[in-house]
Amino acid sequence: MFGKPSELKNFFSVKSVAVFGASRNARKVGHIILRNFVDSKFKGKIYPVNLKAKVILRQKCVKSLFEVNEEVDMAVIAIPARFVPDALEQCGKKGTRFVIIVSGGFAEIGNFELDSRIREITEKYKIQVIGPNCLGIFDAYTDFDTLFFPRYRLGRPDEGGISFISQSGAVGAAVIDLASREGYGFSKFISYGNALNVDETDLLEYLGSDKNTKVICMYIEGIKDGRRFMKVAEKVVKKKPVVVLKAGTTKASAKAVSSHTGSLAGSPEVYSAAFHQSGVIEATCLEDLFNFARTLESQPAPKGKRVQIITNGGGYGILSADACMKYGLELAQMKAETIEEIKKQVPDYAVVSNPLDLIGDADTQRYKIAIEGAMNDSNVDMIFVIILYQSPLVTPDIVDVITEAYDEMKKPIVAISTGGDFTEVHSTALQANGVTTFTYVKNAARALKMLFEHYRKR
Amino acid sequence: MFGKPSELKNFFSVKSVAVFGASRNARKVGHIILRNFVDSKFKGKIYPVNLKAKVILRQKCVKSLFEVNEEVDMAVIAIPARFVPDALEQCGKKGTRFVIIVSGGFAEIGNFELDSRIREITEKYKIQVIGPNCLGIFDAYTDFDTLFFPRYRLGRPDEGGISFISQSGAVGAAVIDLASREGYGFSKFISYGNALNVDETDLLEYLGSDKNTKVICMYIEGIKDGRRFMKVAEKVVKKKPVVVLKAGTTKASAKAVSSHTGSLAGSPEVYSAAFHQSGVIEATCLEDLFNFARTLESQPAPKGKRVQIITNGGGYGILSADACMKYGLELAQMKAETIEEIKKQVPDYAVVSNPLDLIGDADTQRYKIAIEGAMNDSNVDMIFVIILYQSPLVTPDIVDVITEAYDEMKKPIVAISTGGDFTEVHSTALQANGVTTFTYVKNAARALKMLFEHYRKR
Repeated sequence: MFGKPSELKNFFSVKSVAVFGASRNARKVGHIILRNFVDSKFKGKIYPVNLKAKVILRQKCVKSLFEVNEEVDMAVIAIPARFVPDALEQCGKKGTRFVIIVSGGFAEIGNFELDSRIREITEKYKIQVIGPNCLGIFDAYTDFDTLFFPRYRLGRPDEGGISFISQSGAVGAAVIDLASREGYGFSKFISYGNALNVDETDLLEYLGSDKNTKVICMYIEGIKDGRRFMKVAEKVVKKKPVVVLKAGTTKASAKAVSSHTGSLAGSPEVYSAAFHQSGVIEATCLEDLFNFARTLESQPAPKGKRVQIITNGGGYGILSADACMKYGLELAQMKAETIEEIKKQVPDYAVVSNPLDLIGDADTQRYKIAIEGAMNDSNVDMIFVIILYQSPLVTPDIVDVITEAYDEMKKPIVAISTGGDFTEVHSTALQANGVTTFTYVKNAARALKMLFEHYRKR
Repeated sequence: MFGKPSELKNFFSVKSVAVFGASRNARKVGHIILRNFVDSKFKGKIYPVNLKAKVILRQKCVKSLFEVNEEVDMAVIAIPARFVPDALEQCGKKGTRFVIIVSGGFAEIGNFELDSRIREITEKYKIQVIGPNCLGIFDAYTDFDTLFFPRYRLGRPDEGGISFISQSGAVGAAVIDLASREGYGFSKFISYGNALNVDETDLLEYLGSDKNTKVICMYIEGIKDGRRFMKVAEKVVKKKPVVVLKAGTTKASAKAVSSHTGSLAGSPEVYSAAFHQSGVIEATCLEDLFNFARTLESQPAPKGKRVQIITNGGGYGILSADACMKYGLELAQMKAETIEEIKKQVPDYAVVSNPLDLIGDADTQRYKIAIEGAMNDSNVDMIFVIILYQSPLVTPDIVDVITEAYDEMKKPIVAISTGGDFTEVHSTALQANGVTTFTYVKNAARALKMLFEHYRKR
């Protein structure tokens, strides 16, 4: 690390960028990176570096950085590894101190000599490097984007509060692609690969102070300096939740880790203990990482773990109760007056208990009554709303009813729906309004248990 | 039970059907059921029974079954509970011996008197009843469909090998809606509700002999006669796999069971032991039920549990190895000659090990080489193919390569991809070709472990 993590903000406020490896070939990494700059909202200057071409994607090329008369804030390097030292030398001499090296072919394949060379150059010129062997960064707020996956293949999410630090580019990319499809907002995504001189802890510290970031997600294969990570994490979690997925937790996969990013996987127990001690939330699979992040981003702190289940399908209510108990939540017992009040307003065949079964012919009004009852009952800490949109009486204004209940931020409320296209349209609408939705009750229960544990410790 | 389960086939070969409760009001259950008959491929005669209307949906109405001069094979009853006895009497006198009672309002709400009355009538006339308090049936092969959820809300799946017996209509409906979106084929769906005289065991026995059914799925809240269920299940599982999700496995949810379908939830341990003993596969959540069913439908029996992981994302390979170990699978060790053969044909920076990391620039040809190597190596029992479609070099013909490998049916092969719209298009194409796909490696590992255990016992 050179300078301070606070310097990392320079990676996200670039006014001019050079692309080493810019190419006319639409399948080349350098082409896709250049295209993303050209097609995005990025308003800065773009300098494609190419020895032969004069113009690529309507951008005038330079043969080297020395042809540029103005300052160049950042360079993205996407050329074969052996040419990277020369590109870095150009950056150093030109005063370009923020560089993303996308290219692989260094420590991760055992090429320690080349690794040492680029390390020396960055030290000489005090260049901060994200990478090598990475995707670089994406900022949903500025649309600054060095990801070399075409936008038609990898959707970019809208602005939101989740930031994601990923040692693996592909894992991170898959998650933001999923998030973009499902309507979840992101702040920054950083794939840092081999971590030449900017590592996971630097990035964690930086995002801890980033105002657009409300939740920090991390995919990690190895941590370089455990003590420093814990010290920084302890500080950051006071400001915002941090969720980590540690890969390589078995002997077999630990071997794969070293050939992927050159990290040492380390003992999973030691990692777990360290995460626990520093207040970091550990996810044990990618699905939980994604679910935990979006739940933490949108839901308020629960006062306890007593869940009221509201459903229009009896079987789904039972499965929800099973899942709540299995994953360590409790079923709420609403107050007698709440139950009376609800009973007055719903048909007598509705089962006003927990689960509260509004029955298959429930309309939006019936949901509204039940949700308001549970929301205002101090015996209820969290609400599961199961909506089976297959039922003909559930009208689209159910989205508004749940959004309004959620907007009060009194207690966590999540919506669970399983189904096809009609269901997805409504679930996505809820997600776009900030409400956390799930396809399966199991995942909702796991996420709310995590939420309870997280805030209980604080 | 009257007659034999073999008689149940009459519910699926109907040539004329009466709809009690047929209505002009598009939101009424009776309207939706009538519309489904009219709009579907059903070619038989339809008799809407309505006291006032003369024509509904271009179908001539009758005031009672006695106005119909021809035989009526089946009646669907969707009228208030108190009028059901009269409708049943009409059926009995008319000789209509197969009836689906959609209406609720019997034992499940404590109305045992009405329950007894309809029971007497069915005994008197030897009427077989599916229901009451149910959705009835859907047959993807004949398009016969009594589900009262509109098709724009609840997609109907194409023809396939999965049949689903569900005590809860809504749980079943949500799953077939999901299946229709994701491209999985179904044979028959039966929601049997209160099980007046056709119960889960009768339906299990019937589907055991149904040639279109390759896998039987069940959602159960309670089993009426445990011994009989086990005896029948033991016979059926010799012919095809049976997967059961038992709901109400906690004290809290068991209470909800009795108010939902009037069943006794029973001790979860007793159920688990009975399922295990009779060779039934137990799913512990809805997601597993769905995943297990589609895996059993499409995958061949594995010889062992050694998995070869093939990936274009290193991190994903590591997460897959973690998941395999966590859920009880093993990592395969390919033969030296296989490794040599693959190494000859892929770039030297690919990591030909397990996980086999084809690296982010892998094209379809590289996948083909790796898949063929693993498919022909007797040290490999199952194959995980991770495809991150975000990478620009993965071309759509990857779908053909995997389909061809799968079509050989030599060993289980599943495809795992996480992402947005571009990814979904390709995953759905694979599913349509019969290949099992997953969004998360965890679920793939759980499903393949189940597959291994299932065939090991046989």
